[in-house]
Order: sequence, then structure tokens, then C-alpha cells
Amino acid sequence: MMRTRPLKVALLGCGVVGSEVARIMTTHADDLAARIGAPVELAGVAVRRPSRVREGIDPELVTTDATALVKRGDIDVVVEVIGGIEPARTLITTAFEHGASVVSANKALLAQDGAALHAVAEEQGRDLYYEAAVAGAIPLIRPLRESLAGDKVNRVLGIVNGTTNFILDKMDSTGAGYQEALDEATALGYAEADPTADVEGFDAAAKAAILAGIAFHTRVRLDDVYREGMTEVTAADFVSARRMGCTIKLLAICERAADGASVTARVHPAMIPLDHPLASVRGAYNAVFVEAEAAGQLMFYGPGAGGSPTASAVLGDLVAVCRNLVGGATGPGDSAYAQLPVSPMGEVVTRYHISLDVADKPGVLAQVATVFAEHGVSIDTVRQQGRQDGNGEASLVVVTHRASDASLSGVVEALRGLDTVRGVASIMRVEGE
Amino acid sequence: MMRTRPLKVALLGCGVVGSEVARIMTTHADDLAARIGAPVELAGVAVRRPSRVREGIDPELVTTDATALVKRGDIDVVVEVIGGIEPARTLITTAFEHGASVVSANKALLAQDGAALHAVAEEQGRDLYYEAAVAGAIPLIRPLRESLAGDKVNRVLGIVNGTTNFILDKMDSTGAGYQEALDEATALGYAEADPTADVEGFDAAAKAAILAGIAFHTRVRLDDVYREGMTEVTAADFVSARRMGCTIKLLAICERAADGASVTARVHPAMIPLDHPLASVRGAYNAVFVEAEAAGQLMFYGPGAGGSPTASAVLGDLVAVCRNLVGGATGPGDSAYAQLPVSPMGEVVTRYHISLDVADKPGVLAQVATVFAEHGVSIDTVRQQGRQDGNGEASLVVVTHRASDASLSGVVEALRGLDTVRGVASIMRVEGE
Repeated sequence: MMRTRPLKVALLGCGVVGSEVARIMTTHADDLAARIGAPVELAGVAVRRPSRVREGIDPELVTTDATALVKRGDIDVVVEVIGGIEPARTLITTAFEHGASVVSANKALLAQDGAALHAVAEEQGRDLYYEAAVAGAIPLIRPLRESLAGDKVNRVLGIVNGTTNFILDKMDSTGAGYQEALDEATALGYAEADPTADVEGFDAAAKAAILAGIAFHTRVRLDDVYREGMTEVTAADFVSARRMGCTIKLLAICERAADGASVTARVHPAMIPLDHPLASVRGAYNAVFVEAEAAGQLMFYGPGAGGSPTASAVLGDLVAVCRNLVGGATGPGDSAYAQLPVSPMGEVVTRYHISLDVADKPGVLAQVATVFAEHGVSIDTVRQQGRQDGNGEASLVVVTHRASDASLSGVVEALRGLDTVRGVASIMRVEGE
Repeated sequence: MMRTRPLKVALLGCGVVGSEVARIMTTHADDLAARIGAPVELAGVAVRRPSRVREGIDPELVTTDATALVKRGDIDVVVEVIGGIEPARTLITTAFEHGASVVSANKALLAQDGAALHAVAEEQGRDLYYEAAVAGAIPLIRPLRESLAGDKVNRVLGIVNGTTNFILDKMDSTGAGYQEALDEATALGYAEADPTADVEGFDAAAKAAILAGIAFHTRVRLDDVYREGMTEVTAADFVSARRMGCTIKLLAICERAADGASVTARVHPAMIPLDHPLASVRGAYNAVFVEAEAAGQLMFYGPGAGGSPTASAVLGDLVAVCRNLVGGATGPGDSAYAQLPVSPMGEVVTRYHISLDVADKPGVLAQVATVFAEHGVSIDTVRQQGRQDGNGEASLVVVTHRASDASLSGVVEALRGLDTVRGVASIMRVEGE
């Protein structure tokens, strides 16, 4: 059954992930050939700095001209691990136009231009696979796209950024503040020098857009994803969370509305119960919880980043794309037939944990409760405590029943207008119950 | 792109799973058609008792003649949810011979005759998919077969039987004995009237054979799987486990030997550390932990049984097989190219927790330690305690370093020959460290 002409692979980018892909393609060539039904060969490697020594890679394969490489015409599969929007987008488009299929690990590009890239792939009858773009080595895109293809996904709830999970886990387990935990993450290499993309939720938002699109068979753009970072989370929030039997995680949440007619996608820190499977996800690990109508609750757990895990996902896709080429077929393409509208954050319905600094005198609770009632937000529990510091202040913690984000915003605005409310110390959503 | 001739599906079996498959095929027909690129239609349902009322199924589709149904010639996909070896095996073979692809949820059949069935499928150019055969709704076969196709799986460690996990979880959380926990599982419908297949590990062994075969690209027969049930696990074992910082789970373990040249597959109760992700799998849930060379540690978690979850897995396969038919392709077939030998249990290397009843007098520990040393089994810790009941007995708990099962068996036999050892109270393997 084995065909003899090898499939030719062009690798764009040879950093942490790319060099690991090249290494495994060499060391495990026989296994890959047996699983594909044809040998695969590295036919070119495009890099920015050709002078760097790349162990195990034939220097003759290395080029700085990525465009010429994808235009060669004899390339069967282009593996893009450059990241970023350009030149990756143009190179992938050019690759399709010159007859190649593409495997990409590029979450930013897929989140922003996935639809356009899928369109070119389909036009050219080629595959676009991108398992590595979300949650590293964890098989997630394929299970959502294929294993659950006969089911109706109602919710995806995930820890999809390892850096922020490392920081929040550290804060939870040691009582450290945000800055201290971030410093440790940076020192250990879990956070980049500029951690903005991670801690402000941009990275997770790109993944949420991709996951929501696949889960709901609907086009979800990056702009559709509500995003809130985790830089405001304090040690005090973790104390509050513990009192609720919860911890705090930065979650990517994609939900189908109760009536099924619309979807939402959002990224923000949230309290989740300690007995929820996501609560025990430690360190830089990722995990994604999926709720489907027939399947029930599933969870996928593993390393969300790193050279080897990401290379594993890239190579799984490479084998699939090569098998398709050998079999003369293409894999499942883009599926956005459902075309559900993406609702704004105001329509999201969840529970809230609100800490208020209030005047320590009679009648305050009644005033506060009235504000909630006027906005149709029902209170689950209230905890009131004097601060004992003689300045006449107390704190009030309110946990609500389920309410829309718009109603809650109305409540918060009105609370800020009350004389007796000195400040809204924190607002945190409560998920996973 | 939508073709108009519907794909015809024959359903063999209409019990808990089959009726749910039929229901979803009807209620979600539009979604399935959009995802496949062609409508699918239920063309026949083979049952044993046609008189039973089957809500939502056209009585004209129901037949007792399954053989005639699979021989009709116009059937594109046969969904087999009868279970057991015969008539399922003959029906599936006949289906292939008459041009159909097959989706099956039949773990016993796949474990016993998977190779032969795959051979017929390949001969006929048809697909055989069976995600539902292992761990219900949890996407596992597809991730192992496809997502990890570019990686090297070294170990699969799974809770793949919900009944036994329910019983062990109950024993752990309440201190109940085996019989009491089994009675509760039976009362709640988690255990069958005859629980043998579950509690003796036969069900898990079939799944271990299937998982090992896929993970290692090697033929693993049911007979190759070492099997030990969990009926001997006692409340005292859980107390011992807690002292070790462990709990007890019935595990299916598929491992590649350290030198990579052979594999093993086994099912038995084992202690695992409380901080291992599998330790917190509650109730009847299933979870499978996979260790791969590049991907690292992954876990897949979800409901392992039940009509709806199993139907979700069956329908995911149905969509995949139908897509393949529309695209004129077949999915990845059987992969046993590695042909690694399956080693017997004696060659498995792990740690052991051994409880001995010994005479309460000086020199016993030295005697016992000598036996371990003579068999080359290194001791990690020993805990010795007098029983205070004045009968001159004490208990000795030995935890070993890693040793082969054959060496440990030699130790146990020799210990039984010592005058000072009154009995070997329990031997339990320690995994997941």
C-alpha cells in the first residue's frame, strides 16, 4: 500500500516549535511513513536568521525566502509555525494557491482571518488544520469538529492560557498578590517579558473565538469576544472565593443561549466551585470542559504550550493532512452553516459576587437590596461585616442569582450613586455551577 | 455542495443506545445533513421484539430480520448497537460484504475480533469506526488514532469502567465495604444484576486490549491482557491507601516497556496518589490519562456509559463515516504495523504495597527484609505495628521500589513459607507516580 514518492513538507519558522517538528520528522520518519502510507520528507525550512546553527537540519534546506519556498510547486504540505498575522497570512494563502495543504499553529491568525483562509483552502480543494492553535497538545479541535459532530455543544468552558493559570494557581496556593505571582512566572519562564497578551486575556480571546466558531458552527470573530484581563484580581478575591467554596480561574466561555437562537463568547476571571474539574487544574496546564446535549460533560486536559506538546499537535495534523492527500480526499472544512448571531456581553446570564465598601450604619443593607430589586437582580446571599477599625466602614458581600450582565451593570452604576456605598471593591462572575 | 440522495442508515439494535441514536437522527436531521453534506435517513431498524412500542420510529422500518436488512444492498452505513459476539460479528461482516461501512459500539467484539473485522473492512474499501466501544462519550479512539498520530504514546492509564469506579468511590468516601457499596450501585442502577463483567474486570480488559492496540500500533488480543477484579478490595485497603496519600481505582494500564521493544496491558485495582488527576474522578465517570513522548500528559474525562453519551459517540462516528462516503474516501484503518510483542504480566515493572500479618517478636523484620533482598526487590518503606490484642501478632506494611511482577511473586511465595509470617493480607500495586 505504501507509495514511494515522498510527500514534501515545507516548514515556515524554526523556533521552539518548528525545530521540534523537524526533529521528530527525522527521528520518527519510519513511524510517520507507516501511519501515513507514504514517506514524508522535509523539503525546505524558511527562517529569518539562517546563520543560527540548527542541529539535525540539512543546511541546504534552509532559506530566508519563505515566499519562494511556498511557491515552489512541489510542496505538498506547508507547516506554518511563525505566528502573528503577516507574513503568515500571505504565505498560507500563497501556499494554497500553489497546491499545498496547510497545518498552522497560529491562533491569532485563525481567530482573525480563519474564514478567509478556509475559503481559499476550499476553493483550492486543500486542507487547513490547526489543532495546535488552541490548548497546545490537547486534542480539542478534532474532538469538537469530529467526535462531537453528531451532538449539540451547548457550552465550552476552558482554561486556555497557561501563563495566567500559573499566576492564579500561585496566588491561590500561597496567598501571593498578582505582582508577586507574575514576577515568579516571569522568572520561571512561564510569562514573557511583556505579559500583556496573556494577562489581559488577548491570547485566550483568540482561542475563544476559534472554539466558539467550531462548537456552534457559526462565524465568531475576535471582536465578538468580550475580554477582561486578570490583572485586577487580588489576594482578597481569593479569600472571598474560598469563603464561597470556590477558586478563581481566567476562563474562556462559549455558550449557546437558553433558547438556542444565539451564542456568546467571553474571557474573564471567574470564581468556580472547588469541586469543579477545572478548579484542580494546576500550574501552566490547560483544560477545557465541554457540555454537549447527548454526551454530557467532557473534559480535555494537558499541557497548553511548549515546543514538544505543540509539535505533537502539529504532527498529528500533518499525518492527517498527508493521509488525506494519499487517499485523494480532504478533511472536514469550515462549518459555519448555523450562522447564529453572537450576542453582546450584556445578554450573558450568570451569577455575580460583589464586594462593597459601605457605611457602617443601619439601613444600608435595605438600600442596597432595593437597588438590586429595582434592576430585577435577585440576591442569593448577603454577608455583612463591620471592619472594627472605627472608621465607620463595613463591607458587604452580595452573591446574586442568575442575571444578565446588563442588569448587573445597571445595579453597579446605581450602587455607585448611593451615599452609603463608599466603593465597589470587586465584581466577579461565578461560573461552573 | 449538498448532494440530494440521502445516505441510508440501518440500525441494528434499538435498546437504550439505539433508540437514542434513532431519536437524535430524527430531531437533529438538519444539523447532521449540514455537517455531512448530504441528508441521512434511517432506512431500517432490526430488533428482537418488534411488538415493543418505539416512540418516534416509523413501524414500517422495524424488522426482526437483521440479516436481510444488512444484505439489502442500498444501505450506506450499518450502526451496530446489539453488543456481544454473535450475531453482531456475522452481521457486521455481511454488511461490509454488501457495501456498507460500519459504526459499532461493541467493545467485546472489537477486542476479540477487531483484526478480522478491520481486514474485511479494508478488503471492501469500507470504514469501521467504534468510538463508543471505549469510555462512552469521551473522545478517545479518535484522539489516539488521529490527534496523536505524529507522536509516540508510552502509556495509557484509565478508569474505563463506571460501575467499579462508582463502587470504589463509595468505599473511599464512606468507608463502606465492597458488598455494601455494590448493593448501593445495584440499587441505583449503576451495577447490573450480575455484575461479574464489571467487577471482575472483563469489561475493562476488553477496553484495555482496544486501547493498547491503537496506542502502540500493535495487535493486542483480549488474552494478552492481564486481568484482576476488584472484589477483594477491602475497607482496610482504603485506610492503607490513605496513609500512603493514595486512593484505590480499578485501572486499565497499557505500557510500552522502557526499552520500547515490547508492550503490556493489564487491568487491576491499584493505589494512585491523591494528587493524580485520575484520583478525583468521582462516581460512574470515566477518565483516561495518556502519556506521549512529545505531548506529555493528557487526560480525557466524561461519562463512560449511558444511552445519550454512547449515542453521541456513535453519531460522531456516523457523521465521519458519512462524510467519508460523500468525499469518496475512507478514514484511517487498522494500524498494527509496529507488531510489538506483548509481554506477560511477570515482566511488568511497578511498585507494590504489601500488608503482612506476622508474629510479634524480634527478628521478624530482618527475616522479611532478607526475603525481599534475595529476590532483588528493594524496599522503600516499612511500617511495623503491634496489634495490642495480646495474641502475639503484629502487622507489617512494606512498600517497595519498582520491581518486576515476577520478582514480587517470588517474594510473596517465599514470605508464605516463613514461620513468622502468618499471612499475606493484601498486595496492591502502586501506579501513577
